[in-house]
Amino acid sequence: MLIVLKPDATHAQVEKVCAEVKKQGFQPHPMPGAGRTAIGITGNKGPVNPLPYEALPGVEQCIPVTKAYKLVLREMKPEGTRFKIKGTEVGGGKNFTIIAGPCSVESAKQMTAVAKFLKDQGVHILRGGAFKPRTSPYSFQGLEDEGLAILKEVGEKEKIATITEVMDTAAVEAVEASADVLQIGARNMQNFSLLKRVGKAKAPVFLKRGMSATLEEFLLAAEYVLHGGNHGVILCERGVRTFADHTRNTLDLSVVPSVQKLSHLPIFVDPSHAIGKREFVEPMAKAALACGADGLMVEVSDDPDHALSDGAQTLSFKGFERLLQELKPLATALGRKIN
Amino acid sequence: MLIVLKPDATHAQVEKVCAEVKKQGFQPHPMPGAGRTAIGITGNKGPVNPLPYEALPGVEQCIPVTKAYKLVLREMKPEGTRFKIKGTEVGGGKNFTIIAGPCSVESAKQMTAVAKFLKDQGVHILRGGAFKPRTSPYSFQGLEDEGLAILKEVGEKEKIATITEVMDTAAVEAVEASADVLQIGARNMQNFSLLKRVGKAKAPVFLKRGMSATLEEFLLAAEYVLHGGNHGVILCERGVRTFADHTRNTLDLSVVPSVQKLSHLPIFVDPSHAIGKREFVEPMAKAALACGADGLMVEVSDDPDHALSDGAQTLSFKGFERLLQELKPLATALGRKIN
Amino acid sequence: MLIVLKPDATHAQVEKVCAEVKKQGFQPHPMPGAGRTAIGITGNKGPVNPLPYEALPGVEQCIPVTKAYKLVLREMKPEGTRFKIKGTEVGGGKNFTIIAGPCSVESAKQMTAVAKFLKDQGVHILRGGAFKPRTSPYSFQGLEDEGLAILKEVGEKEKIATITEVMDTAAVEAVEASADVLQIGARNMQNFSLLKRVGKAKAPVFLKRGMSATLEEFLLAAEYVLHGGNHGVILCERGVRTFADHTRNTLDLSVVPSVQKLSHLPIFVDPSHAIGKREFVEPMAKAALACGADGLMVEVSDDPDHALSDGAQTLSFKGFERLLQELKPLATALGRKIN
Amino acid sequence: MLIVLKPDATHAQVEKVCAEVKKQGFQPHPMPGAGRTAIGITGNKGPVNPLPYEALPGVEQCIPVTKAYKLVLREMKPEGTRFKIKGTEVGGGKNFTIIAGPCSVESAKQMTAVAKFLKDQGVHILRGGAFKPRTSPYSFQGLEDEGLAILKEVGEKEKIATITEVMDTAAVEAVEASADVLQIGARNMQNFSLLKRVGKAKAPVFLKRGMSATLEEFLLAAEYVLHGGNHGVILCERGVRTFADHTRNTLDLSVVPSVQKLSHLPIFVDPSHAIGKREFVEPMAKAALACGADGLMVEVSDDPDHALSDGAQTLSFKGFERLLQELKPLATALGRKIN
Repeated sequence: MLIVLKPDATHAQVEKVCAEVKKQGFQPHPMPGAGRTAIGITGNKGPVNPLPYEALPGVEQCIPVTKAYKLVLREMKPEGTRFKIKGTEVGGGKNFTIIAGPCSVESAKQMTAVAKFLKDQGVHILRGGAFKPRTSPYSFQGLEDEGLAILKEVGEKEKIATITEVMDTAAVEAVEASADVLQIGARNMQNFSLLKRVGKAKAPVFLKRGMSATLEEFLLAAEYVLHGGNHGVILCERGVRTFADHTRNTLDLSVVPSVQKLSHLPIFVDPSHAIGKREFVEPMAKAALACGADGLMVEVSDDPDHALSDGAQTLSFKGFERLLQELKPLATALGRKIN
Repeated sequence: MLIVLKPDATHAQVEKVCAEVKKQGFQPHPMPGAGRTAIGITGNKGPVNPLPYEALPGVEQCIPVTKAYKLVLREMKPEGTRFKIKGTEVGGGKNFTIIAGPCSVESAKQMTAVAKFLKDQGVHILRGGAFKPRTSPYSFQGLEDEGLAILKEVGEKEKIATITEVMDTAAVEAVEASADVLQIGARNMQNFSLLKRVGKAKAPVFLKRGMSATLEEFLLAAEYVLHGGNHGVILCERGVRTFADHTRNTLDLSVVPSVQKLSHLPIFVDPSHAIGKREFVEPMAKAALACGADGLMVEVSDDPDHALSDGAQTLSFKGFERLLQELKPLATALGRKIN
Repeated sequence: MLIVLKPDATHAQVEKVCAEVKKQGFQPHPMPGAGRTAIGITGNKGPVNPLPYEALPGVEQCIPVTKAYKLVLREMKPEGTRFKIKGTEVGGGKNFTIIAGPCSVESAKQMTAVAKFLKDQGVHILRGGAFKPRTSPYSFQGLEDEGLAILKEVGEKEKIATITEVMDTAAVEAVEASADVLQIGARNMQNFSLLKRVGKAKAPVFLKRGMSATLEEFLLAAEYVLHGGNHGVILCERGVRTFADHTRNTLDLSVVPSVQKLSHLPIFVDPSHAIGKREFVEPMAKAALACGADGLMVEVSDDPDHALSDGAQTLSFKGFERLLQELKPLATALGRKIN
Repeated sequence: MLIVLKPDATHAQVEKVCAEVKKQGFQPHPMPGAGRTAIGITGNKGPVNPLPYEALPGVEQCIPVTKAYKLVLREMKPEGTRFKIKGTEVGGGKNFTIIAGPCSVESAKQMTAVAKFLKDQGVHILRGGAFKPRTSPYSFQGLEDEGLAILKEVGEKEKIATITEVMDTAAVEAVEASADVLQIGARNMQNFSLLKRVGKAKAPVFLKRGMSATLEEFLLAAEYVLHGGNHGVILCERGVRTFADHTRNTLDLSVVPSVQKLSHLPIFVDPSHAIGKREFVEPMAKAALACGADGLMVEVSDDPDHALSDGAQTLSFKGFERLLQELKPLATALGRKIN
């Protein structure tokens, strides 16, 4: 059940409602929105009796919730989740936020070059993998701790926000100390131990859709993180696995409006991993913007042809500049702001 | 193999090359393009010897072709296929052509109302099914011959081009006499008897991708039609079948740039059938335009809530007007012309 | 709705119930079973009122049916459909019927050799394609009419039943004149014109599951045939299209018990087309028998390595002998009879 | 590359070859088989020069390996991996090993009842989840440490081997102390941190195929475990995600002979999770045996209708007895031994 408070409800009133929820044996999850606060109730089996709450001061409405997920529901925050990553605002409908960088952190020199280039281009969040989930144990597994150190150093020196993947509960602390956003990869979307752990982290979580995840499973994975207390979640579509073989995965853009209807969480699109071919990144990035995505994650590098991983899908600096030039008039026409 | 002629090659030279191809036991398929003519060779098993052709006057180059399809290849017509449907130009990169109308032809009154509305909106091709492929034998199967008669009458009276589905070789003649474009539905994409038959028709063919067709199978289905002699083919992505259940099918927009890279045929997108939900037609139509599709097929009706088929995905007049208002600034920003 | 008659209901009573159904504006579909007759009602929208029928003499029970399909429902014929093809009984639980032969009819010599071999092995139904649905227009399309003539001649001379694919309504008459069973291929499972046409044929129909057909769509395709009046339908699983690439298609054996629970129609398995690799035909054929399939369709030829189509999945005579030797003890253990 | 030693090669000769491999900068992986030892080489990029090894005493042959996986390859152990779990032999072709038990450990009483029942039935490995991967954070997550304690106690008291899922690197030690086999669930098949960690464990690993894993990805996941030094791996097919909706997942039995051709690892089948419906567990279990699987994992419980998870697919004691009665004659006919 969802308890929606009045716009002028006081902090004390919110506290009182939470106390009543606990008294009934459930957990309250207050979520302050722009206009008002809503309180989600979890821990119940079956329907919750609204009577104890409806009469409390400051309560406007009790909404029964039948979906398997609760905290991620659009009704919890009708205006949408919006937060800042090192000064760059994500979500909220107007922002179209670009996250870019190489697949793997390969050296301080490489990361510095990319960071400088991106800042020049007006991009404020740098990606780069230190721990790489690789299908084969014989493939390059990332620079690991050294990669984290490079990311931290470049992020601080170049004043750019950073995001990197975390693959293991044991590594969450170290990753959180080195990067601004914790990425959960597609293969770990249902690594529930990891979801619970990053639910306790302070840094926002960038959660990629699993390769065969339904929308409900995707939202429930996010629900794990919110349920742990971390409300800074960004979802990301990165292609699903189908019979189609003309792209590496099948980019399911229809998930963008579908997520936005059901949930208040921002939804990004990663065309690089979905398509796996550099030349199609641009048209699919434009499509992502046009259908309303909140942002992009794109692979770009100073030397994609010699990348240690995923070079075939990585844009060169020139390619990235052209992508931005294509996106800008589109964003203007759509009333969106690239940041 | 593909024989590319010089820009200034004469008609007589083209004829002579064709005669030589026949002499070697193969079939020539001359395809006049904007700048020059290319001649495809079929009927060969294994590589074709270029020697007999290279020395002929007017021949510029012989290109070996290893793909399973030949006539649909981009190399056959690098500038892209472009043709007119009752005065409306389709293909060619700049045009973004909208085909719209109800799922089924239900009455002359309905079709007249929709035709008038569309013409007011600047849309020049009217869809409407007379023969409906329905999963259940107990569902409405279309008005059949009566539907064809209505379509013909409304098309002539309202001076609007028409397109309708043909499901059977025996019906091709009647459908061609009543409509301007022959639609092959997704379930018949590999009905090879039908493909061969419409390859002999004069009217253009609108070929929908099968629900589990790979790109190669899709292009080979078109190859059947071109091989029959009918070069007026439009491809259409309408969603593929995957595990995902948040939309009726999964709209695979990445097929748009993939087709355009490999083939000279125009590629449209049908968001209505792919998504199955009215509210998501608009964002996906915008994405189709943004990723470079040559046009849209959209379901619209005067009374979608009482449609005999597929009402849930059909736009109202108001919904269609809003869609156009959203598409127009986007088209402008992209240098495209809605027609 | 389904009207179940008493075991001792007379023919006149059945007629009277049918007359009453027509009087109410619906179509009756009497289906005589081993023990009793059931009458399906179609043509209704929404629930049918049972009152006019319940009081009629000979009526035992009126069962409301909510599924989209009716005539194929298990309740229509609880003991299962069973019929003979040139003396060989198909269906009924105990029979495990093998249909075998080459992918394509290539010559009278080839078909005679295969027919003689199969009869020696105790196999009574010979397959062979005269019209071949080929993905590419440049692949061998079958001997067509000549192939039909060969099939007819060999069938009569060698006294073996024959089955061949029909791809077009216009060809149904000719195919029915030449073969004992009409095969509808996977690509035509939703060619509704063809389904309606074979519903009017006298010969049994062997209906292959479409490559991305759900169980409901599969059963509704069969419903089209039964609705046309042809109750001799055999279903066949031949692999579905998924992301998995270790076999040509993914053989979905779980459809066997699923069909048998919902429908009275026999369900066969075609491991050759599903797997696409000769070496795995045997284990999957054994699995098909073990999970309860009513029969197999297997490709076998005198010279598979030089077949004009699908040689890679076709067993040699030796391979087929070994398959039978493997199946026999299994059939005995399961209380089944290979025929 | 794979170095195959002579049948009579001495331990010292094996050591010497390994030393040479290290000297060249690679890692040797000796795998003693029944007849002879093979040594896999990893750590190379590109082809390995066989010259330094071919001349060494005891070396019979150097086989270049081009597949992405090496240690799991059939060539490494042509006779197949075979090992004992608390006295019960798994693998080797003749054994058909049944692992059974409830989805979740719910109480010592329940687990004791199931253990006693299974031992009576001749089943020697008991499953039961202490940590449950649940799609929703609000579903029962397992008894966790208490569940482990129950499993350990019941395993020791009832002298039955135990298997339970481990979801997190941090829990591997505790799980290994409580159970005989470590299960990796489908959602964690590409949790590479976890694969690396269990590669260092002593207990065998039961690795379930991911819901959209290709055969290559499945084998490479196992390669991670073998690469870590743990050669006791059992693979398990448990259904893949497709469009088909008549079962929970689509059981891909063709992976059984496909794995057995490529790899020496035993391959089990879990029909309960694949199908999700109790009534179809029996036919699919029979199919698994018939196509050559090395064993089954089946859910059975004393009270499936009140299970805290997955009750719908869990057999009752009676249902399990019937399953065994069906499997036994089949096993006899196939020359297999149920253990």
